[in-house]
Amino acid sequence: MFNQEVLNELIKALGKDKVLSDREDLIAYSYDATAAVPRQEPDVVVTPTSTEDVVEVVKIANRYKLPIYPRGSGTNLSGGAIPLQKGIVLTTWKMNKILELDTDNLVATVQPGVVIQALNDEAMKHGLMYPPDPGTVSTATMGGSVSECSGGLKGLKYGVTKHYVMGLEVVLGSGEVIKWGGKTVKNVSGYDLTALFTGAEGTLGIITKILVKLTPIPEAKKSLLAVFDDLDKAGNAISDIIRHKVIPATLEILDKVTIGTVENFTHAGLPTDAEAVLLIEVDGYKEVVEREAPIVEKVCRDNGAVDIKVAKTDEERDKIWFARRNALPSLAQVKPALVLEDATVPRSKIPDIIKEIRKIAEKYNLLIGTYGHAGDGNLHPTIVIDPRDEDEVQRMHKAVDEIFHAAIGLGGTLSGEHGIGIGKVRYLPLEFGEAGVRVIRRIKEALDPNYVLNPGKMVLREE
Amino acid sequence: MFNQEVLNELIKALGKDKVLSDREDLIAYSYDATAAVPRQEPDVVVTPTSTEDVVEVVKIANRYKLPIYPRGSGTNLSGGAIPLQKGIVLTTWKMNKILELDTDNLVATVQPGVVIQALNDEAMKHGLMYPPDPGTVSTATMGGSVSECSGGLKGLKYGVTKHYVMGLEVVLGSGEVIKWGGKTVKNVSGYDLTALFTGAEGTLGIITKILVKLTPIPEAKKSLLAVFDDLDKAGNAISDIIRHKVIPATLEILDKVTIGTVENFTHAGLPTDAEAVLLIEVDGYKEVVEREAPIVEKVCRDNGAVDIKVAKTDEERDKIWFARRNALPSLAQVKPALVLEDATVPRSKIPDIIKEIRKIAEKYNLLIGTYGHAGDGNLHPTIVIDPRDEDEVQRMHKAVDEIFHAAIGLGGTLSGEHGIGIGKVRYLPLEFGEAGVRVIRRIKEALDPNYVLNPGKMVLREE
Repeated sequence: MFNQEVLNELIKALGKDKVLSDREDLIAYSYDATAAVPRQEPDVVVTPTSTEDVVEVVKIANRYKLPIYPRGSGTNLSGGAIPLQKGIVLTTWKMNKILELDTDNLVATVQPGVVIQALNDEAMKHGLMYPPDPGTVSTATMGGSVSECSGGLKGLKYGVTKHYVMGLEVVLGSGEVIKWGGKTVKNVSGYDLTALFTGAEGTLGIITKILVKLTPIPEAKKSLLAVFDDLDKAGNAISDIIRHKVIPATLEILDKVTIGTVENFTHAGLPTDAEAVLLIEVDGYKEVVEREAPIVEKVCRDNGAVDIKVAKTDEERDKIWFARRNALPSLAQVKPALVLEDATVPRSKIPDIIKEIRKIAEKYNLLIGTYGHAGDGNLHPTIVIDPRDEDEVQRMHKAVDEIFHAAIGLGGTLSGEHGIGIGKVRYLPLEFGEAGVRVIRRIKEALDPNYVLNPGKMVLREE
Repeated sequence: MFNQEVLNELIKALGKDKVLSDREDLIAYSYDATAAVPRQEPDVVVTPTSTEDVVEVVKIANRYKLPIYPRGSGTNLSGGAIPLQKGIVLTTWKMNKILELDTDNLVATVQPGVVIQALNDEAMKHGLMYPPDPGTVSTATMGGSVSECSGGLKGLKYGVTKHYVMGLEVVLGSGEVIKWGGKTVKNVSGYDLTALFTGAEGTLGIITKILVKLTPIPEAKKSLLAVFDDLDKAGNAISDIIRHKVIPATLEILDKVTIGTVENFTHAGLPTDAEAVLLIEVDGYKEVVEREAPIVEKVCRDNGAVDIKVAKTDEERDKIWFARRNALPSLAQVKPALVLEDATVPRSKIPDIIKEIRKIAEKYNLLIGTYGHAGDGNLHPTIVIDPRDEDEVQRMHKAVDEIFHAAIGLGGTLSGEHGIGIGKVRYLPLEFGEAGVRVIRRIKEALDPNYVLNPGKMVLREE
């Protein structure tokens, strides 16, 4: 239980400036970027600056049986950073040092509070990049994005966060510190706990150090926008590009609702009568780009694209991506709130899931704009709602439920990149069965038997 | 305990043709490809053809408290397939169907007994490949290579097995069947058990179905051989190639001992006075190869290569790789047995680890040829011994011990691609500390509390 004694212990261990307990601080940590999940103020917020600080906090939490909620910048989209059962929010924002940039081994070592873009800015000085690029790349932290296994726009060609994490230092719920992985490209020593902690949403340990792989920045890129008057044709084009052995860096889709909303908001010149547009970027050596861009153009044309724009200048490129970047902001203008979903299916099922979502939107009389990472099969159906309209909120919940079922039914998953967190935890049996959920629970209890770390997320204690 | 009753139950459940108990069969399954580990005959060998068969075997094993040893082709190099405590060897070689080759989603679904090359042969018909290529690619099974997280020659550019496993069906030690992952490029649902089971050496579950990512076959490749009279110069060239933003598909090294032994055996025309040769292959579009090969050549020259051969024909290319392929066979000719080690360090530490190995060879008066995947920092110091020479065997064990310490001391790992198995299990605290080993044990016991699955490998029961 939290009381003055706990506060005194935390201040004694960390120093006064690393312990926040004023009401305005607690309110600021009562929510993250997720809509439609409960808010909850923590008892206290700590801002450790070292692994030792984190260990101290864990020990105190154990002594007083308080839960700990690790937190980066709070850009989470599944409620992962919300202190559901009060207790201690541990924010890593003061652990924000890039500890090493090893250009010989193409490995960066960072503290968890480093913002993704800050790492990229530093890497760029050496002609290198850290490819995972969630939409929040300029605010989200490395710790948060590793814990959530962030995706982004470049998953198809470059993979996602888990493909770049080479090693971790983790403080366990017991206060023990372990180190896993390292700078070696190959490593099969012990179970792959680096992979297990990546995407574990802070429920198995608190990440205090991260080693990630860097890659050379591609020297050239070229963007295209292809307009389709038929969803299936767009879907076929997506698979057909891959079939032509071209793996674009980015392959995005906007559906009719999204196109209309973006155009209404931005007047960017999008074709509002189109059923779908594909936004595609190829990258690499300039020779590669010169070979791949015409293939993509031809494939889109052969699959019935009614219009294709190939960006010839940086300005034209920016114009193409301006539309994509404005998908979420445009939808956000329509009603006071939006629920950003994360339906993910095998790439070839993109037209099917978009059609399913349309049917669901119609059935529940909701406005759902669907867009996202078509090359990954990772879509973001975005439902705009007025939270004061209780009936609409209820319809939204039913629609979300049906979207999950549709995605799983098409061989997909509950979450491509937003995580399970609070919102999807009760859907886990749908994907893994009861036996699978028991395994998740056994793993949780093996590493955090008392549910000290981020309780209420990813996995629930057996009732 | 094993007895006639168990045998009858197995025959009843699987059919007579799937149960082997003749002495000659048991002997054949008493060892794998690992030198210097104990042999042990199992009580019985089963050859299931389906997931249901595997479930039946697990249930019977539980009923009679018998351990199960999953086995592919037995090409394992860390004793992973040896039935240390007798019991049941479960070999997957009859589960050898490629279930689906989904060219739209670039995913193959296979049973565990499919030989890696068989998958590649099938994929090749569609212009695709499965990149992980351990030396045993033409005999090793997918199940075995996923369980060991096989590496191979293309790790630097293409990654290793874990980067290609997208989903698994696994029979747990309880007999429950779980499915994880799938065909979606992105997936953050639940803990990443696909990653946890990959490389778990069959100690957490028996893999019965595997989904792997395929990639387009590169259209061109070019090979080079660079000769160095100084180990540091070769090491600098390795890092410098990467620094020039070229990531070769293959970047191998042979040290002086290996060069001499290969030349003596093959008369391939290797420079026996060289300190090291690098064998490098770049691949991709032909324009990429045409740009990268000259960069590699120039970097090697700038770093002091005394001779460089660039293969102009397929024959010349084959000649370069003939030397590399003959490293192990040549060393095997020197003495009756060889111990193939797996020292792995950050790429930039290649010269240091080779020098350490030389010192160790001198100290213990052993012949150690070192070669391997320089681009990965993954070397194979190979100690040739006569097992009848007890003193030499003792010296070999001491040398292996020192090599492990040297690798860890240079920021490396116990195993890059051969696994922990029997031989390295007592070294785990060196890499992970006691806290880390406790975590490994907790994971094991969470999923296999009775140590039914491959006991004696990866992790030992607490004494």
